[in-house]
Amino acid sequence: MPFTRRKIAVIGAGFTGTTCALMIAQKELGDVVLVDIPSMENPTKGKALDMLETSPVQKFDSNITGTSSYEDIEGADLIIITAGIPRKPGMSRDELVATNAKIMKDVSEQVKQYASESYVLVLSNPVDAMTYVCYQTTGFPKNRVIGQSGVLDTSRFNTFVAQELGVSVEDVTSFVLGGHGDSMVPLVRYSHAGGIPLDKLLPQEKIEEIVERTRKGGGEIVHLLGEGSAYYAPAASLVLMVEAILKDKKRILPSIAYLEGEYGYENIYLGVPTILGGNGIESIIELPLSNDEKGQLDYSADAVKNVMALVDSQ
Amino acid sequence: MPFTRRKIAVIGAGFTGTTCALMIAQKELGDVVLVDIPSMENPTKGKALDMLETSPVQKFDSNITGTSSYEDIEGADLIIITAGIPRKPGMSRDELVATNAKIMKDVSEQVKQYASESYVLVLSNPVDAMTYVCYQTTGFPKNRVIGQSGVLDTSRFNTFVAQELGVSVEDVTSFVLGGHGDSMVPLVRYSHAGGIPLDKLLPQEKIEEIVERTRKGGGEIVHLLGEGSAYYAPAASLVLMVEAILKDKKRILPSIAYLEGEYGYENIYLGVPTILGGNGIESIIELPLSNDEKGQLDYSADAVKNVMALVDSQ
Amino acid sequence: MPFTRRKIAVIGAGFTGTTCALMIAQKELGDVVLVDIPSMENPTKGKALDMLETSPVQKFDSNITGTSSYEDIEGADLIIITAGIPRKPGMSRDELVATNAKIMKDVSEQVKQYASESYVLVLSNPVDAMTYVCYQTTGFPKNRVIGQSGVLDTSRFNTFVAQELGVSVEDVTSFVLGGHGDSMVPLVRYSHAGGIPLDKLLPQEKIEEIVERTRKGGGEIVHLLGEGSAYYAPAASLVLMVEAILKDKKRILPSIAYLEGEYGYENIYLGVPTILGGNGIESIIELPLSNDEKGQLDYSADAVKNVMALVDSQ
Amino acid sequence: MPFTRRKIAVIGAGFTGTTCALMIAQKELGDVVLVDIPSMENPTKGKALDMLETSPVQKFDSNITGTSSYEDIEGADLIIITAGIPRKPGMSRDELVATNAKIMKDVSEQVKQYASESYVLVLSNPVDAMTYVCYQTTGFPKNRVIGQSGVLDTSRFNTFVAQELGVSVEDVTSFVLGGHGDSMVPLVRYSHAGGIPLDKLLPQEKIEEIVERTRKGGGEIVHLLGEGSAYYAPAASLVLMVEAILKDKKRILPSIAYLEGEYGYENIYLGVPTILGGNGIESIIELPLSNDEKGQLDYSADAVKNVMALVDSQ
Repeated sequence: MPFTRRKIAVIGAGFTGTTCALMIAQKELGDVVLVDIPSMENPTKGKALDMLETSPVQKFDSNITGTSSYEDIEGADLIIITAGIPRKPGMSRDELVATNAKIMKDVSEQVKQYASESYVLVLSNPVDAMTYVCYQTTGFPKNRVIGQSGVLDTSRFNTFVAQELGVSVEDVTSFVLGGHGDSMVPLVRYSHAGGIPLDKLLPQEKIEEIVERTRKGGGEIVHLLGEGSAYYAPAASLVLMVEAILKDKKRILPSIAYLEGEYGYENIYLGVPTILGGNGIESIIELPLSNDEKGQLDYSADAVKNVMALVDSQ
Repeated sequence: MPFTRRKIAVIGAGFTGTTCALMIAQKELGDVVLVDIPSMENPTKGKALDMLETSPVQKFDSNITGTSSYEDIEGADLIIITAGIPRKPGMSRDELVATNAKIMKDVSEQVKQYASESYVLVLSNPVDAMTYVCYQTTGFPKNRVIGQSGVLDTSRFNTFVAQELGVSVEDVTSFVLGGHGDSMVPLVRYSHAGGIPLDKLLPQEKIEEIVERTRKGGGEIVHLLGEGSAYYAPAASLVLMVEAILKDKKRILPSIAYLEGEYGYENIYLGVPTILGGNGIESIIELPLSNDEKGQLDYSADAVKNVMALVDSQ
Repeated sequence: MPFTRRKIAVIGAGFTGTTCALMIAQKELGDVVLVDIPSMENPTKGKALDMLETSPVQKFDSNITGTSSYEDIEGADLIIITAGIPRKPGMSRDELVATNAKIMKDVSEQVKQYASESYVLVLSNPVDAMTYVCYQTTGFPKNRVIGQSGVLDTSRFNTFVAQELGVSVEDVTSFVLGGHGDSMVPLVRYSHAGGIPLDKLLPQEKIEEIVERTRKGGGEIVHLLGEGSAYYAPAASLVLMVEAILKDKKRILPSIAYLEGEYGYENIYLGVPTILGGNGIESIIELPLSNDEKGQLDYSADAVKNVMALVDSQ
Repeated sequence: MPFTRRKIAVIGAGFTGTTCALMIAQKELGDVVLVDIPSMENPTKGKALDMLETSPVQKFDSNITGTSSYEDIEGADLIIITAGIPRKPGMSRDELVATNAKIMKDVSEQVKQYASESYVLVLSNPVDAMTYVCYQTTGFPKNRVIGQSGVLDTSRFNTFVAQELGVSVEDVTSFVLGGHGDSMVPLVRYSHAGGIPLDKLLPQEKIEEIVERTRKGGGEIVHLLGEGSAYYAPAASLVLMVEAILKDKKRILPSIAYLEGEYGYENIYLGVPTILGGNGIESIIELPLSNDEKGQLDYSADAVKNVMALVDSQ
């Protein structure tokens, strides 16, 4: 059987979606179909064409196309969902959840129809709940519906640590559990530079400062930009997960995974350490937690449950 | 003497500038300073931080910072200038030239002051004239002041040819002279796929169609996007030139170069084939042209001269 | 269905085979099984392990294993055959052909048994005839049995041209037909630097010198080494073809392909320009040849036919 | 000032040296000069040319040349020394040390003469003592004379852990101190997979097995190969250090560094965690050790001191 390129669909052609598309193409992970709503069809085609026109210079053979028709994702191997609206001034959290849950349901139904064998990565906000909506709507097995937040959180954390220590980002590793942002649970004792625990390298208060900055990492960018939000680091984080799956790398990465008893939780999507490989989430790594860490994780799980309840009530 | 990273300043933190910055950092070509006007200082810092936060995931050690202060480009090895306004509805070409020439003069004076040994790549529009303004204002030797248009034109041309033939973009090469856009002079007889001349592979009318589409390649994207213009392929084209220079690769690439007799022109910046290496434009390759080609190039040179005259008259 | 890594078997764990294995692993094109004869089982395992131990430093997730058991190639997607002996002093060409044809038959039978759906790339010497033996023995369709020689010849030619002109190797392209070595048919008029025909850049005698050096390129290395022959450039050339196929790149590359009427030849494996993609040799590009070129190609085809006759007579 | 390529000299054109050369060229870290003794001049030129002939296919612009004349390393930025003989059957350790110390002195004098500003990486065996010889002979400051062993040891350790756990090599980190081989001091508590301490992921006896296999990692390859020793992983390890220095990455890597009081030792070259950047060894990281670890490190230091005494006595 001839070898064919993978087909990857990116739903939502905003900055995160287009940045994902380019990074996927540059790595020759497959051909990319960029999907947005009908009123954005032409701009989506324009972005796709502009990216494709970099290929002779960057020497990649990946096709990139733009569309507003879900038929074009037919048979996709992997889907990235970035669709959804950002929270606007004056909008309540509940309104945001309601709006994005509706978008996610619509998108997930299309995914189910046209790419029923695909693996799905979700970034839409609030990500834990939106991954849950996608899981429910598609009916896909849990290993194939995965949310992203922890890779981004650790990437930010590692950036700050590398800068503080003046060392290569290649040598810093860190570890988070739980939700995105405020309810993120950093496991500082599993964070290292060159294998050396951070608390041997940095004073406690500096570590706490970095943890706090990471928690508010999305807000820091929003505040600086004035309008819009971060998209480079979120996109790079998604693409790392895409690569782990398509290349069956068995990476140990934090994913938003569906829990059925792990860490003592049932029927919830929550950020936990996972093995990401050719079969999506191949396993969940359960770590012994201190009372304090477990308390923080409970708090994080509660926050997620509340949003999931909101979604279910609709 | 310790090894230090190169310092590359990108003036203008719009989409092209930021895309350049990320591509340079990903390739670890050096640390990047992204500069924009004071009112954009915070967004510029935000974009730089967002890009930096991809570094642990993408495993590059290049710093990226945002600023509105030209002091921060001090000692830069290479400067990319993307600053300038796009042509707005109702704006005459003369108004555009006047506005951008003023911006280019201001920027060039800062470059001269803070990075007097740097190599400068210009993208601002209209690029032939703006490169000339930069050359005049900085007083830098001609090998160090270079404009980009032909790399982008050929990248677009190659994209269309590869799609038409259904072959890898790695195997298509092409060749343009002259100005950007309408006055571009494609040398189709020097364009090949796998070394085979295009006219052996495609019917003449298809080649003409591709030439015409390339000429209007910028407009095609503008039209699709609705607002704004292409930035991915322009950025990738600039970064190819950056890499050729910083790595002293001696690439044969079309550059907007200052001519002193070559091709029969004097004191004009025009797109010609050049050797790009560690000393910027190391030489200009002079090709025998047919009468028809020479006629087209004259037309292109006249167009550039007219804009340069506009600039000089201010 | 979960994503799995490609499986690539390299038959013959000499220098070319091991160099291929490492390059394939570094590019994460798939897992590699290195096969050699039973008496070399341990050294083969040792080389594979040494290469695998580079993976944490080079950050690739490709397994590399050594074996002398053909069962281990079961289900391989692609096979590279480098097995065979080099010509020894005092050995006639006929003896070499007889010995290597026997090795090739044995290997091909194993390939047929354990990897009946695989694509096969042949490097063993004399390569045109050995590719033919593999084709006959496996009974695979012609698009899946491919010999390498032209990619290496053009890589050498391009190296010499780039050095002579003092330009980047990225900008030189060239073109050969026919057999490897003495019977190679260079199409100089399809060779360029930066798209410019070589005869506009170099004097005729210099071009002829480079052609002659390319023809004898293998011998030049043999002579310098004293014992053994070139393996870096042959391996890199094979891996380029592997990448074109596994990534379905549709590269325009010279391959040793089975001809059924193309260029006027029947039932012969000969070096011609091809499209290499996910289905192996997807098409053969037929170029109009001058009388002189056709004469050279006839001579090359005759040489191949003679060796093939030798093989058939056994 | 024009940008020029770095110049890297590799002394010793055996398998490790040539593998280093190719990896450096592929990464476009600079031009490579491969040096060996006069009787090996032609083979060295042959290997260099064979590697150079991969450049059009692999798209790198780095020159690679072979020589037996030290004048050709003039002005090199960085020197890798792999010269020396392996231990032969029946040869005492003292004879090996005496022979290689003499070679190292000769080489170091040439380095001092022709590349007095260079940074030097030593691999020759026994590496701690040979680095010391180079340091004494060149008189270079200690930050510029560096030995390699720990990067290789950790790469092997990480390979075995990744295989045992079935996870990506990208997620395993480990840590060693002390000498190479038997006297290596693994700090298992600073070794992790995905940030998780190994002892939470593997049973103690499995960890000990992996430690023991790592200690004997060189011997395992020697035993399998039958003749010769490992070269792929040693070369990749050296090139990682080269990259850290030339790109000023500030990597946290184990180096053989000259100690002046660190860890309680004076005037000894020993494997310790270091920051490797543009100024070579920019700092040594001192970690609190347990009594057991300190005991092992003392043992390792004694072994090194004994060999250094042997060298000094000559």
